[in-house]
Amino acid sequence: MTTARILDFIRTRRPDGPCLVVDLDVVRDNFQSFRKALPDSAIFYAVKANPAPEILRLLANLGSNFDCASVAEIEMALKAGATANRVSYGNTIKKERDIARAHALGVSLFAVDSHEEVEKIARAAPGARVFCRVLTDGEGAEWPLSRKFGCVPQMAVDVLVYAHQLGLVSHGVSFHVGSQMTKLDAWDSALGDAKRVFDKLAQQGIFLKMVNMGGGFPTRYLKDIPTAQAYGQSIFASLRKHFGNQLPETIIEPGRGMVGNAGAIKAEVVLVSRKSDEDDVRWVFLDIGKFGGLAETMDEAIRYSIVTARDGDAMEPCVLAGPTCDSADVLYEKTPYPMPVSLTIGDEVLIEGTGAYTTTYSAVAFNGFEPLRSYVI
Amino acid sequence: MTTARILDFIRTRRPDGPCLVVDLDVVRDNFQSFRKALPDSAIFYAVKANPAPEILRLLANLGSNFDCASVAEIEMALKAGATANRVSYGNTIKKERDIARAHALGVSLFAVDSHEEVEKIARAAPGARVFCRVLTDGEGAEWPLSRKFGCVPQMAVDVLVYAHQLGLVSHGVSFHVGSQMTKLDAWDSALGDAKRVFDKLAQQGIFLKMVNMGGGFPTRYLKDIPTAQAYGQSIFASLRKHFGNQLPETIIEPGRGMVGNAGAIKAEVVLVSRKSDEDDVRWVFLDIGKFGGLAETMDEAIRYSIVTARDGDAMEPCVLAGPTCDSADVLYEKTPYPMPVSLTIGDEVLIEGTGAYTTTYSAVAFNGFEPLRSYVI
Repeated sequence: MTTARILDFIRTRRPDGPCLVVDLDVVRDNFQSFRKALPDSAIFYAVKANPAPEILRLLANLGSNFDCASVAEIEMALKAGATANRVSYGNTIKKERDIARAHALGVSLFAVDSHEEVEKIARAAPGARVFCRVLTDGEGAEWPLSRKFGCVPQMAVDVLVYAHQLGLVSHGVSFHVGSQMTKLDAWDSALGDAKRVFDKLAQQGIFLKMVNMGGGFPTRYLKDIPTAQAYGQSIFASLRKHFGNQLPETIIEPGRGMVGNAGAIKAEVVLVSRKSDEDDVRWVFLDIGKFGGLAETMDEAIRYSIVTARDGDAMEPCVLAGPTCDSADVLYEKTPYPMPVSLTIGDEVLIEGTGAYTTTYSAVAFNGFEPLRSYVI
Repeated sequence: MTTARILDFIRTRRPDGPCLVVDLDVVRDNFQSFRKALPDSAIFYAVKANPAPEILRLLANLGSNFDCASVAEIEMALKAGATANRVSYGNTIKKERDIARAHALGVSLFAVDSHEEVEKIARAAPGARVFCRVLTDGEGAEWPLSRKFGCVPQMAVDVLVYAHQLGLVSHGVSFHVGSQMTKLDAWDSALGDAKRVFDKLAQQGIFLKMVNMGGGFPTRYLKDIPTAQAYGQSIFASLRKHFGNQLPETIIEPGRGMVGNAGAIKAEVVLVSRKSDEDDVRWVFLDIGKFGGLAETMDEAIRYSIVTARDGDAMEPCVLAGPTCDSADVLYEKTPYPMPVSLTIGDEVLIEGTGAYTTTYSAVAFNGFEPLRSYVI
C-alpha cells in the first residue's frame, strides 16, 4: 500500500525518530476518485484529518472546498488559497466570538444542531446560511460515533425554522454516518431522514437546498474496503430513492478517505521482551504510541497495517506498545498483533495508512517526546 | 481546594481560552509533606506529571531528585539546577542511543525490566547502577495499570544477576502500585516481593541496596484521600515487616501527588443543548476536552471536581464534552456529571486538581486548537 515515493524518501533521507511521510500523488488520486464517484457533490475536505499546508494547497488548487473545525483551520484553508465561499465552519460547538471572527473572514456557511447555536450565529454572523446536523446511529463505523453531534430529525426541523425566524438562511441538513464506515448502505436511512426534514420545512414555506452527507469514507487498513466508485453508486441510488427527480445540492466531507492511505509512519523497535519465562506473548515496544500520534488505537479501534523487512519469517502474536511511561500507552493487547519472530531491537517498521488523524492528535510533549514530525512529498 | 492565589490570578489576569494555573506554594507544601511522611526516603519527582520549568526549579532548590522518562526530561531537570546524580532514567523502554546520551550527561541510575535492556545499558552506560521493575497487580488504582512495565519477581532476579555479570551495579528493585492509588496497604505485597528478590540475589553474593517504591500517591478529586502522613506510616510499617532491621535505601516518585492539587484549569461553557425535546440529560460543551489536556478522562477514569459560580443552584446530571469535532471527545457520559440547571453559555468553570497530567497530554493542534496554556505562579 505504501508508495515507492514514500519508501524512497525514507531510504534516502533516513530521518531520525518516528515520522509521517505523505505522498501528495495519492491525495490527488483520491480527490479525483471522489470527484468521479460523486460528480454532482461538492467536496469539502475535512481539514482536521491532516492540515499540512502542502495538502491544503494541493486540494485548493484542485478545486476542493474545506470543512473547518475552528478559526485556526479556516485561516489555514484561506492561506492555502481557498476563498471564504469555499469554507464551511462545520463544528456545531463554536464560541460566539469565533463565529464573529469567521464571519469577518467572509465565511457564510455554518453547522448547527441546537437553538442555542442558531442564536449565536444570528447575532455574530447575521444572514449566514446554516445547516442542521441530524443524529445517525453510526452502526458499522470502526471509530466510535457518540451522540455528541446532531439532534433528532424533529428537533432539526424546529432548529431550522428558528434560524429562518432569526433572519438566517436555512440552507440544509447534515449528518455523519461514522468514521471508517465500511457499509455501503449506511447513508440510506440518514438520507431518508434528511428528506423528511426537507418536506416538513417545505410545508412551512422554507425550502432547503443542500444535504451535507459528511465523511465516513474509509481508508484501507488490514481489510479491503469498497471503492469510492461503489460508495458513489450506493449514495446516488439512495439520493434518487428519497429525493426522486428533485435532487438537492450535496456535499461530502472526506478526511480519512482523502489522506489516510497517502501516508505511512516510519517507526523503530525500541525493545522486544517478555514479562516472564512462561509468557507466550512477547511485548514489542515502538518509538511511537498512543500519545505520539496513534490515538486512534484507543480501545484498539483502528488496527493499522504494520510492515517490517522480516515479514517473510514466521510470525507470532505480540503485544504492541508505545515508548512512554504510561500504562495506557499500549496499542494492541486484547487482540495481540502478529509480528515476525525474528523482529529485533532497532528494526524499522512502517505503519501504513496513517495519513489521517495522526500528526494533530500527537501530544505536545508527553514524557518529553516531541510531537510526530511529518514530511509531505 | 483551589487556592486564593489561583482564583486571584484568573480574576485579575482574565486569560482568554482554557488554561492551567499552578500555585507553587502548594507544590512546596506537598514536597514538605512527603519529606515529613517518609523522612528516610529520597524523593524523585516524576517529571512527566508536569515539567513546567518553574516547578522543576522549585523542586531542585528544595532538594528533590528527578525521575525522568526521556533525555528531554533529563535535560530539563539539569537545566532546573539538579545535578546528574540526582536524576533517575526511570523508563524501562529506552533507545540505546538515548542511554548513551544520558550517560554522557552523567546519569548513572537506570530502570530495566528485561535482559535486552540490560544489554543496552551495559554497552551504552558501562558501570551504571540499574534497578529492575517488578510487576504488581495495580488493584485499587483509578488510572489503569497494565502489564506494560515490570517483569515477574523470578525474572527480576535473573535480570539483576545478568546485569551483575555484564559489569553493571545491580542496585535495587522498583515497582509501581498504580496511579491515583487510594488503598493505604497497596505497597505491602510489592515490598514483600522486593524483599524476596533481595534475598535470592544475596544467596548469589549480590547485595541490593535500594527499593524504588514508585508513585501512585493520589490527589484529591471528588473524594477525600488519605494524607501523605498516613501513606508514610503504612509504607514504613510494611518496610519494617518485610525488611526488619535491615532497611534498604528507599525512593519514592510522586508526580500526581506532588502537583495534582496545585493546579486548576479555567475553562468556558461553549454550548448547553439537548438532542431532542424529550431528553432528560443536557449536553454541556466546554472549550477543553480529551484532546486539549483532559486525556485522563479516558474511559471516565479520572473524575475531576468542576466548580462554577452557580453551584448553589439546583443541579442536574449533564453529559460533559469537549470542543472538537471528534465523537470520542466526551468527558463524562456513562456517568453524567451534576451541573447547575442555570449553567449557561459563556460561564466560566474551574476544573480542579489538574496540576498533573494535563498540559503535556494535550494534542499539538487537534482541530486547530492550540495546546493547553499554563501559568505557574
